[in-house]
Amino acid sequence: MSDNYCIGLDYGTNSVRAVIVNTANGDEIAESVWDYAHGEAGIILDARDPNLARQHPRDYLDGARAVIRDALSHTASVAGFEPAQVIGIGVDTTGSTPMPLAVDGAPLAFSAEYGENPAAMAWLWKDHTSAAEAEEITSGARKIRPQFLAKCGGIYSSEWFWSKLLKCKRSAQPVFDAAHTWVEIADWIPAQLCGVSDPARIKRGICAAGHKALFHTDWGGYPDEEFLTGLDPDLARVRRSLPDAAYTVDQQAGRLSPEWARETGLPAGIPVAVGAFDAHLGAVGSGIRPGVLVKILGTSTCDMMVVPRSQQLADIPGLCGIVPGSILPGHFGLEAGQSAVGDIFNWFVNYVQPGGAQKGSHEALTAAAEKLAPGESGLLGLDWHNGNRTVLVDVRLTGALLGLTLHSRPEEIYRALVESTAFGARVIMERFEEYDQRVTEIVNCGGISVKNPMVMQIYADVMNRPLKIARSRQTPAVGAAMAGAVVAGTAAGGHRDFDAAIEAMTGTLDTEFMPIARNARVYDRLYALYRRIHDAFGVLDSQSALSDVMKELIAIRDETRAT
Amino acid sequence: MSDNYCIGLDYGTNSVRAVIVNTANGDEIAESVWDYAHGEAGIILDARDPNLARQHPRDYLDGARAVIRDALSHTASVAGFEPAQVIGIGVDTTGSTPMPLAVDGAPLAFSAEYGENPAAMAWLWKDHTSAAEAEEITSGARKIRPQFLAKCGGIYSSEWFWSKLLKCKRSAQPVFDAAHTWVEIADWIPAQLCGVSDPARIKRGICAAGHKALFHTDWGGYPDEEFLTGLDPDLARVRRSLPDAAYTVDQQAGRLSPEWARETGLPAGIPVAVGAFDAHLGAVGSGIRPGVLVKILGTSTCDMMVVPRSQQLADIPGLCGIVPGSILPGHFGLEAGQSAVGDIFNWFVNYVQPGGAQKGSHEALTAAAEKLAPGESGLLGLDWHNGNRTVLVDVRLTGALLGLTLHSRPEEIYRALVESTAFGARVIMERFEEYDQRVTEIVNCGGISVKNPMVMQIYADVMNRPLKIARSRQTPAVGAAMAGAVVAGTAAGGHRDFDAAIEAMTGTLDTEFMPIARNARVYDRLYALYRRIHDAFGVLDSQSALSDVMKELIAIRDETRAT
Repeated sequence: MSDNYCIGLDYGTNSVRAVIVNTANGDEIAESVWDYAHGEAGIILDARDPNLARQHPRDYLDGARAVIRDALSHTASVAGFEPAQVIGIGVDTTGSTPMPLAVDGAPLAFSAEYGENPAAMAWLWKDHTSAAEAEEITSGARKIRPQFLAKCGGIYSSEWFWSKLLKCKRSAQPVFDAAHTWVEIADWIPAQLCGVSDPARIKRGICAAGHKALFHTDWGGYPDEEFLTGLDPDLARVRRSLPDAAYTVDQQAGRLSPEWARETGLPAGIPVAVGAFDAHLGAVGSGIRPGVLVKILGTSTCDMMVVPRSQQLADIPGLCGIVPGSILPGHFGLEAGQSAVGDIFNWFVNYVQPGGAQKGSHEALTAAAEKLAPGESGLLGLDWHNGNRTVLVDVRLTGALLGLTLHSRPEEIYRALVESTAFGARVIMERFEEYDQRVTEIVNCGGISVKNPMVMQIYADVMNRPLKIARSRQTPAVGAAMAGAVVAGTAAGGHRDFDAAIEAMTGTLDTEFMPIARNARVYDRLYALYRRIHDAFGVLDSQSALSDVMKELIAIRDETRAT
Repeated sequence: MSDNYCIGLDYGTNSVRAVIVNTANGDEIAESVWDYAHGEAGIILDARDPNLARQHPRDYLDGARAVIRDALSHTASVAGFEPAQVIGIGVDTTGSTPMPLAVDGAPLAFSAEYGENPAAMAWLWKDHTSAAEAEEITSGARKIRPQFLAKCGGIYSSEWFWSKLLKCKRSAQPVFDAAHTWVEIADWIPAQLCGVSDPARIKRGICAAGHKALFHTDWGGYPDEEFLTGLDPDLARVRRSLPDAAYTVDQQAGRLSPEWARETGLPAGIPVAVGAFDAHLGAVGSGIRPGVLVKILGTSTCDMMVVPRSQQLADIPGLCGIVPGSILPGHFGLEAGQSAVGDIFNWFVNYVQPGGAQKGSHEALTAAAEKLAPGESGLLGLDWHNGNRTVLVDVRLTGALLGLTLHSRPEEIYRALVESTAFGARVIMERFEEYDQRVTEIVNCGGISVKNPMVMQIYADVMNRPLKIARSRQTPAVGAAMAGAVVAGTAAGGHRDFDAAIEAMTGTLDTEFMPIARNARVYDRLYALYRRIHDAFGVLDSQSALSDVMKELIAIRDETRAT
C-alpha cells in the first residue's frame, strides 16, 4: 500500500505556509511559503495609529493557491508521489483575527465600496486599537456576567473578537452596518476551500469561539443578547448571525471544492478539518497530551496543556483561556503565555543596538552571555516589555532591570533578559501545578527552541526540568495536517483520532536539555527575588504599595504624548 | 599699583593643574596641566585586585614643579607680569588619599626598600580595598562611639583614612610597621612646598581630618586610643603621631622654601595655605556662602553647603560629613553627594555602546534626548550604579530601570538616566531643607555644568529651581588660589578673609537655567514615583519588604564570582 499524505496550511502573521506530511510517520516531504502581498510584510498599517494592524483577505486565498501548488511541485524527494495520495487538509491561523462578511458571505474587503477600507479587512490578532472597548467589555462582564471572565483569565483582551467588533462600530460605523456577520479567518479559510459561502453554513471552530469570543456551552454558546445589548445593541444583531454550535478540529469544515481542486491540483472532495489557531495546532503537532506542557517559544510564547474532560478542573486564575476541545477533542484546552520573549531579545538587539558595530548580534551576545555563570552579573529583570499575559493578565505593566552597576556589560544584560523570561516561564508552570495540573514533561517548539541552546539551557536550569524539543520545525502546520488526517479517517489512510495521529506523526529530538543542579540552585535564589519584585509591581493587592508605579508611569507617558 | 596674583595647585585623579589667578577680579591669566607619570593615567593598579588604586608621591612633586614653571611661562596675556607679583599659593587635592611617612618625614615610597610597594604609596581616594575594615570601624563605632558616626552620615567609608590604615596593617604589615605616621596628600604637599619635613610640624587641614579621619573638637581631635586599640593596637600608635590641632584654609601651612622658589621661579617666602580637598575649595571657588548650594557635577557629584557656626545645626542624617571649618572658616561645612552621575552616562555610552556605529556618543544621544518631553518615554531609573552616597549611604545598592517596553530607544534610556540623577540631586536638596538649611541659590560647577545644557535644564526642571553656573571652569584651583590670597592678607595685596575673596574673585555666568513650569509639574509626579522606589529598595525599615533585594543580588553575584 502506498503512503498517504495530508496538507497543513499554516497562516502566520506575515506569510502562509503549506507542508505535505506523511500520515504514517510525520515526515514532511515538501513545503512552500508565500509572503502576503498587501501592506508592509503582509500587514496593513496606519501611520497615524501605531495600534492598527489589518490584513487583506485576498492574500489568504492567493496564498493558499500559491503554496499548495508550489509544495506539490517540490515532492521529488518521494519517488512516485501523486497528488491523489493527499487525503485531507487542515488549517491553522493567527487569531483572534475576525473579518466582516456581507450578507452573501463575501468579505466586505472584496466589495468595490469597502475594498480599500482597513475596517473592512481582517483585524489582525496584534491590532490594539480596541483597548477602551476591551475595558468596557471587561467591566460590563465583571458587573453582570463574571462567569465569562472566569474562563479567560479575568480580563477580556483588546486583541479579541468582541473588542474589535465594538471598536469597528464606534470608529467605522458604515462598515459595521454593512457587515452581516463577522468570522475568524480560522473559520473562513476552511469554508472557502470547501466552497461554502453562505455565512450560516460556515462551521465555527471552538478554538476561536471559546478562547476569543466568550463561547461556552455553560451559557449556551456565544454571550447572550442581553449582555451584548448592554454594550451596544448592534452587537446583539451580530450575535443573531452566529450559530449555536462550535466544532473541534476532528470535525470536517467540508470537502475540497471542485474549483479549489482544479486550481491546486489536489483531489476534489477530500475533507478539510475545522480550523484552529496556530498555537493550538502547534501544540498538537508537538504531541500534546495530559501532563505535557507544550511551550511555543517565539517572539512571544504560548504555554499549552490539556486535561481530560472527565477530570474536575478549577478556573485557574491568570490563564488566557480554558476551553473544552480547543486543542484536543475530549480535553480541556488550557492556554497561558508570555506576551514577549524573543521580542525582548530583539528589542535589545534592534532598538538598543548594544556593543557597537559587529558586537551586538544575537549570535555575538549569546556567545558572550553563555560564558557567564548564573548570578554572576548581579542583574535581575522583569520580562514585561509588552505587559504580562500570564498570570497577571495586565497590559499596563512594563519591563524592568535591577542590579545595574558601572560595569554592567551588554552580554550581562542580554543574559538577564533571557533569564527574566525564564522566570516568567516558571511562574506559568507553577501556576498550572498550584492547580493540580502536574507537568510531567515539557516539549518546546518554535524558533527559539531550535535556534538558541543557551536560552534552552537557562530555561531548563530555571524551571529545573528536562526540556525536550519537538521534532518538527513546523509544528502548527503538522498539527493542521494531523487534523486533516483525523477528518480523513482510517478508511482513507488517515487516523482514527488524535491519540493515533500523535503516536504516528509526532516526536521529539534526541537532544534534551537537562537542568544542571548547581545552576538550578542559584536560579532558585534569583527566582525568589524575581517573585518578590513580580508581586510587588504586578499584584494589585500586594503589600508593597508599588503595584501602581508602572501604571502611573504609563499614565504620565500617555498624557505627555497626547499633549 | 600693579595687580597681584595667587597660584592654585589642583591635584586631580589623573593630573595636577596650576592656575594663576588675579586676586582683584579672579581672572585666570595662565594655567598648566601635567599628567602623572606613574601607572595607568597616573594610577597604580593591580591586575589581581580591581579595588586597588594608588599613586606615587614623586608625581606630586614633579607635577608641582612642572605646572608652576609652565604656567609662569604662559603669562604673555598680561603685559609686564612678573613672578614677583605672585603673593600666595593654595593647594587642593583628592582625598581621602593618605600616605605613610618614615620617621624622618620622607614618604616610604621614596625609600629603596619600599619604593616599588603599592602599600607604601598614596592610597588614592577611589581605592576600595578596605571594605571589610570600613565595616569593622563602623560596627566598632556603633557599639562604643556612636557620636563618631553621627558626623559622617552613619557609616565610615572604605575610602577613608582609618580604613586604609587598618587595611595596610592587615595586608602589608612590614610597610605599616615601617611607617611612623600617615598623612593626607592635602597636608603633605603644602608642607613640602614649605620645606617642612618633620612629621610633627606638618599642619593637618581640618577638611581631611574632619571629613575622613573622625577628627572633631567635641572629642578632642582624632579618635581616642581606646577606640582605636579596640580595632588594632597599632592604630593607637599612629594616633600618637598625630597632632591635636587641625587647621582651616585661612591658615598658613608655611612659607615657600628657598629650594622651591629656585626650582619654580616664584618668590621665596610667600605663604602657602593649609590644604583642603578639591570639592571643598571648588565650593569656595564657586562662591559658596550660607544658603548657596554648590553642586560639583562630574563623574560623581559633591553637594556642598555652609552654615555659620553661630547657628544650631542638627546632625543631618545621610550627609557625608558635617565639619566645622572644612569649607569656610567660621562655618560648618556640609558635604553630600551622589556616587555616580557622569559615570552613569559614561557607562551607557562606553559599556552598553547603544545605537550602533556613530549614534551612541554623548553628543548624539543628547541631541536625540533633548527632543523628548518629560515623562514621554515612560521610563524611570534609580541612579545607584555606584551605590548611594547621600542620603542612603549604602554602597550595596545598584541601579535600576523601570518602564521598559519593546519600543524603548537609546535616547529615551539616556534621558531616563539623566533624570534619575536629577531626582537623586533633588533628594539631597530636600534633605538639607528638611533640616532647616534653606537653599536660596544653586551654583553649579564641574564638567557637566558647562558641557551639557540638556542635563542642566533637566536638573532645573526636576529641582524646580533656577540653576547658576560658576564663572570659572577651574573652581578648585581658583578656590585654592583664594586660600593663597587670604593667607597673603591685605597688606601683601591679598584678602582680609574669604568673604572678601569670594566677593572679588568669584562669580556666575550670565546663562542661568530657569525651571519650565510645565516640565516641573510632570517631574513632580515622576519624582513622587522615584521616591517610592527609592524608599522601597533603599530604606531598610521601609514597608516594602524589598530593601534586601539589591543586597541579595550582590551577595549572589559575589558568591558566584568567588567560586
